[in-house]
Amino acid sequence: MSDARQYFKLPSPFAMKRGGALHGAHVAYETWGTLNAARDNAVLILTGLSPSAHAAANDIDPAPGWWEGMLGPGKAIDTTRWFAICVNSLGSDKGSTCPASIDPATGEPYRLTFPDLSLEDVANAAQGVVASLGIDKLACLIGCSMGGMSALAYMVLHPGSVHAHISVDTAPQAQPFAIAIRSLQREAIRLDAHWNDGQYDNTRYPDIGMSIARKLGVITYRSAMEWNGRFARIRLDPEQREGQPFGFEFQVESYLEGHAQRFVRTFDPNSYLYLSRASDWFDIAEYGNGSIMEGLKRIHIEQALVIGVSTDILFPLEQQEQIAEGLEAAGANVEFVALDSPQGHDAFLVDIENYSRAIGGFLSRI
Amino acid sequence: MSDARQYFKLPSPFAMKRGGALHGAHVAYETWGTLNAARDNAVLILTGLSPSAHAAANDIDPAPGWWEGMLGPGKAIDTTRWFAICVNSLGSDKGSTCPASIDPATGEPYRLTFPDLSLEDVANAAQGVVASLGIDKLACLIGCSMGGMSALAYMVLHPGSVHAHISVDTAPQAQPFAIAIRSLQREAIRLDAHWNDGQYDNTRYPDIGMSIARKLGVITYRSAMEWNGRFARIRLDPEQREGQPFGFEFQVESYLEGHAQRFVRTFDPNSYLYLSRASDWFDIAEYGNGSIMEGLKRIHIEQALVIGVSTDILFPLEQQEQIAEGLEAAGANVEFVALDSPQGHDAFLVDIENYSRAIGGFLSRI
Repeated sequence: MSDARQYFKLPSPFAMKRGGALHGAHVAYETWGTLNAARDNAVLILTGLSPSAHAAANDIDPAPGWWEGMLGPGKAIDTTRWFAICVNSLGSDKGSTCPASIDPATGEPYRLTFPDLSLEDVANAAQGVVASLGIDKLACLIGCSMGGMSALAYMVLHPGSVHAHISVDTAPQAQPFAIAIRSLQREAIRLDAHWNDGQYDNTRYPDIGMSIARKLGVITYRSAMEWNGRFARIRLDPEQREGQPFGFEFQVESYLEGHAQRFVRTFDPNSYLYLSRASDWFDIAEYGNGSIMEGLKRIHIEQALVIGVSTDILFPLEQQEQIAEGLEAAGANVEFVALDSPQGHDAFLVDIENYSRAIGGFLSRI
Repeated sequence: MSDARQYFKLPSPFAMKRGGALHGAHVAYETWGTLNAARDNAVLILTGLSPSAHAAANDIDPAPGWWEGMLGPGKAIDTTRWFAICVNSLGSDKGSTCPASIDPATGEPYRLTFPDLSLEDVANAAQGVVASLGIDKLACLIGCSMGGMSALAYMVLHPGSVHAHISVDTAPQAQPFAIAIRSLQREAIRLDAHWNDGQYDNTRYPDIGMSIARKLGVITYRSAMEWNGRFARIRLDPEQREGQPFGFEFQVESYLEGHAQRFVRTFDPNSYLYLSRASDWFDIAEYGNGSIMEGLKRIHIEQALVIGVSTDILFPLEQQEQIAEGLEAAGANVEFVALDSPQGHDAFLVDIENYSRAIGGFLSRI
């Protein structure tokens, strides 16, 4: 295959947690390193809402990936030792079946007829990839941001399938602040007249809604502390300013605009809505009679590393503490690392030095 | 006059800081209590972005005001002792001349022909009200949120006009996080096709942009901590839910919607844009060769109380610490109160008990 991605065909029908099923669906994934004969050196990475399976350069696609600094020979996730797998979330338009995919029953894109998507479905699809590779038990399951919630779902739904877990900047459930942010992002898209109940096309596309959603995302993915040092109150040069009334004047505004322009039209709006809502829905307490602790105690693994960052406003540090406490109460040997990286929730993508030290150190001990 | 408001006609022309002038402009204000013969018991309140001059019930308008718990006989701002004045900001549509007002030169609303508005203009207009009442020196100048920045402008521009100052949940300048939030609020309005470069009317009105702006405001005015206790992950009852795709499901979403519905069509979108930008522009460092401390050191008052709250993400506590340090360096006797109220930036409107104790205590000592 000329594409860097590999594809795993999900069992058909693939039953969804909240009802409905997908027929002929697939998820995209990529791998690095070599699975050993005992098939016990596999590391699975579950991603945040928007990244693809291309976490790092590999033989088929040498372009840098979204976690390039973390994954590769001699890096924290050392691919001379580990066989790493990154799966694109079911429902994401980066190669997996998603609302923009063709529904085989109609020959038309699913759009809003795509069944309700949950992170449990994302986890089950990823587990299918792992099983298809003949791997009974992952050496380590790594989940970042939304992927950290998918990882909790994976472990609770597939007992005995994971030896060690690395939880990165995530939460056992969405708190109301995060729900409010994501709800407003979805609303900006929904209220864009070009969204048109999901029936947009390239000529009428919800650019404005997606741009506002992305900017709000970036505001909550980073931190005020970082921006004080990085942007302060620096103005744009006059020639960089827009001519229109109330146009951008400060560097921070231009920074957000750059992020939005790189995102809009590269991520399907309906897929964004489905994955965003799945993040709000996920709640480990569903597996513990309404208790986060009891839900986490249903996860049986040997070792865990839980990392969080004090500047994260979307997944605050107290939520990583809950995960660490719960996994420990369930019997795992847990290391908890609280970082002070200034970059907020996105620190795992930026502060490679500190995240590498924690992740590489942990992996060297399993 | 049957209206609760009183009106002060600004000198005409009223020159604006950034150029241009207003002709025949006015600001609305309300008063409580009685000015004493020495005219030395006056307390001026400068407001946040959206409140009117109606801070509390008074003889003319018995409806509760936006700071009802704080202002009145026997309350923290005790109107049996103090003559309190609250001025509606120049540029606000709550009775003062604003972009929705008729430009006497054209007979049409100013809309975007309103001159650039700064908080220095807001301060100068308020100072005009005070002077018109025959008050040479305020016993106390209180500024909340945006009004706290207007108050800094007032004191730096009118030396000797203030004895004591109470600074509430505010900042010496906008930091990039606050600029980013306000820029995105303005963008939501600007990108609403019904905004139409400020030429909206009641039939084509930027409801969507204003709603998104308000929700984003409420998210940043409150705190994640408060919402964890207040909303957690409580769902709406099925009959409260909307029928549309991706409609509201959690209580926190309905709460935001309620706030938006109470705001939209009650605040002029162009006025909102002008005041929001004025908040981004204000920078006390302009008066100190680029230094916040040097700018604050140009303010000469006798006493100050600076209050902030640890849960405020829009005007973080470190910014109130800067104000306290600067005013102290300038020679004032400064009290600094850091509260732990869970309500975030809006705590001054909600946690009346703790704010009353601080403000009432301070006022009793001047």
